[in-house]
Amino acid sequence: MLGQFDPEFTALMNETMQMLRDLFRTSNRWAYPIDGTSRSGLEAVLTGLIEPGDRVLVPIFGRFGYLLAELSERCGADVVTIETTWGSVFDPAEVIEAIDREKPSIVAIVHGETSTGRAQPLDAIGRACRNRDILLVVDAVATIGGMPVETDAWMLDAVIGGTQKCLSVPSGMAPITYNDRVERKLIRRKRIERGIRPEGYSDDGDPAAFIRSNYFDLTQLQDYWSPRRLNHHTEATAMLYGLREGLRLVLEEGLEARFTRHRLHERALVAGLEAMGLSRYGDDSCKMTVVTCVRIPAGIDGEAVRSQLLADFGIEIASSFGPLKGQIWRIGTMGYSCRKSNVLLGLAALEAVLPLHGAAINPGTAVKAALDRYAEAEGAAPDA
Amino acid sequence: MLGQFDPEFTALMNETMQMLRDLFRTSNRWAYPIDGTSRSGLEAVLTGLIEPGDRVLVPIFGRFGYLLAELSERCGADVVTIETTWGSVFDPAEVIEAIDREKPSIVAIVHGETSTGRAQPLDAIGRACRNRDILLVVDAVATIGGMPVETDAWMLDAVIGGTQKCLSVPSGMAPITYNDRVERKLIRRKRIERGIRPEGYSDDGDPAAFIRSNYFDLTQLQDYWSPRRLNHHTEATAMLYGLREGLRLVLEEGLEARFTRHRLHERALVAGLEAMGLSRYGDDSCKMTVVTCVRIPAGIDGEAVRSQLLADFGIEIASSFGPLKGQIWRIGTMGYSCRKSNVLLGLAALEAVLPLHGAAINPGTAVKAALDRYAEAEGAAPDA
Repeated sequence: MLGQFDPEFTALMNETMQMLRDLFRTSNRWAYPIDGTSRSGLEAVLTGLIEPGDRVLVPIFGRFGYLLAELSERCGADVVTIETTWGSVFDPAEVIEAIDREKPSIVAIVHGETSTGRAQPLDAIGRACRNRDILLVVDAVATIGGMPVETDAWMLDAVIGGTQKCLSVPSGMAPITYNDRVERKLIRRKRIERGIRPEGYSDDGDPAAFIRSNYFDLTQLQDYWSPRRLNHHTEATAMLYGLREGLRLVLEEGLEARFTRHRLHERALVAGLEAMGLSRYGDDSCKMTVVTCVRIPAGIDGEAVRSQLLADFGIEIASSFGPLKGQIWRIGTMGYSCRKSNVLLGLAALEAVLPLHGAAINPGTAVKAALDRYAEAEGAAPDA
Repeated sequence: MLGQFDPEFTALMNETMQMLRDLFRTSNRWAYPIDGTSRSGLEAVLTGLIEPGDRVLVPIFGRFGYLLAELSERCGADVVTIETTWGSVFDPAEVIEAIDREKPSIVAIVHGETSTGRAQPLDAIGRACRNRDILLVVDAVATIGGMPVETDAWMLDAVIGGTQKCLSVPSGMAPITYNDRVERKLIRRKRIERGIRPEGYSDDGDPAAFIRSNYFDLTQLQDYWSPRRLNHHTEATAMLYGLREGLRLVLEEGLEARFTRHRLHERALVAGLEAMGLSRYGDDSCKMTVVTCVRIPAGIDGEAVRSQLLADFGIEIASSFGPLKGQIWRIGTMGYSCRKSNVLLGLAALEAVLPLHGAAINPGTAVKAALDRYAEAEGAAPDA
């Protein structure tokens, strides 16, 4: 353990910031982790940006869209939501139409909605927001490091990533990045904390405007993450070591190679599930590569299957939320766990367990189908 | 890494709760960590308890009292502060008088103020608050596990601990406990999150009353930490392993043995500093055992001494904040680091470094004085 102001430690903080810029594909000055789990990053950005009464548009296509609306409401926003059928995403034109109708000052949207396994294309929405001087906040918790997230190219103003999804870093930090458009709004709401105010500081700002959270006050956090090193919290040392090492591995593999790897194993998994005769859920044209949603066959107890997979095979697959509870399983292929052996073991286990729970599947086909897909990818002819 | 709903992991969560109850010396149902650094625990409790306009009394005797006032203000409280000379603490009667004058609904106070190294006696204040049906919130970040914190016996309604001080667990979690008086107020402000609301749920509560943070919403967190396991954030798995192991070691040593150990090494350190001829800062009658404040000798560059201790000896001592910046050093003897070898090495290094920076000290005396104190404690006659 190093002390938070030990020069060795602050050097690690700076290295981590640079690696986060590379991860988010941005030249933003600000890219650092919030010391909390993923939703702490969402709350930090929204709490910093939303003044009570600000109009925030949240397009919803799954559970985590609701979370953005919820967080915005708690910040006192005038929240407007639009919703599209779960299992699909928005045509960007629909979102832009809603923007022009509702005239929000902020749009908050999920990139990869893990609850439904769908990814929202963001480039046209980003351009539209920029043209209208609206701030666009993006929840990329489930996609960062597994699928392309182009902060600068897509004109995203603030992006929040997650650690325990595609970065394979333990849960407990939320990497964020934001640009100078965001920073300008934050700075207007800045207020120096009692107890560390410099001589002569007078707090004559609008009390309604200042940021309502101290822990999530990005104006203080950026002072802490800058050469000023203004004392705020005590950085979560061990978590930072984990994040830095995880980012190092991600960048060593290379983002493009990583995205390709996630696509490869997703395709093998999908081939196996299809061969088994399972139906998938949702619109394929916007499917996330890092999670695959499978319809639970009629009459099967999805929870009993999940429990047996965990207890007997040490394999954990997820259920989902709200209207999808009991309807689908979600199989993650994220980060370190996204590998051939896991795909093959997962398919073999599922094929073995499903008939025990009364599901009629095509036996002896899933692993073969996945192996064929791997062979194809290696440019070899499938095993005849 | 285990999944957050893996029965093996939820069993670890339950074990950790029981160990936290033992640590806080409470029979409270609720004792669990907030996933953030220490001040996240303070903010979670205050955000949950303070409704806009609630009158909160904060007695201040150092920097972290200011933080409690700051956090309460950001929650929209009507904050009243009283302040006593830094380096001392309040006579409990002064606080009780202020309570009767100001009639707050909540009192928030620091137990061990690390910025000045003083500990506030809390039992009389606790009793007074209970008699008047006022909620008492205590920041025990710096004392928990190092000095007695008697949640139930002192009638403290909510207590927040820290990990990286006397527990020697990495920064990044904030253990809290609170009783049913606190829970009743929280429940009045409860609101189920959009996206996981059960069929038929209607949110007809007072929008001004609901808890403004989602991440710090204790009503959701206690549902997550209870057998209901309502999905909220994804628990910080690796941090929880660290907290559980740290608590196991603390309880294995035993709280009383631990407090005695902290007193022993503090006394040896103080004997060494006195022999060297350094003055200490503050009122001895309320000195924390886990941190010792030393006046920087006149004309000495305190930061240069600190830097050399760190660079050449790998020993980190702290400066302080606000009016004490440049005036004192703070030497921690906390948790794992509170041991004979560290006390002796610290004294030897300080004795070697101070003359290089121009300080006149009594050479060759500090380590001897500390060793004598250790010998006394072992019941042997001091080395003649």
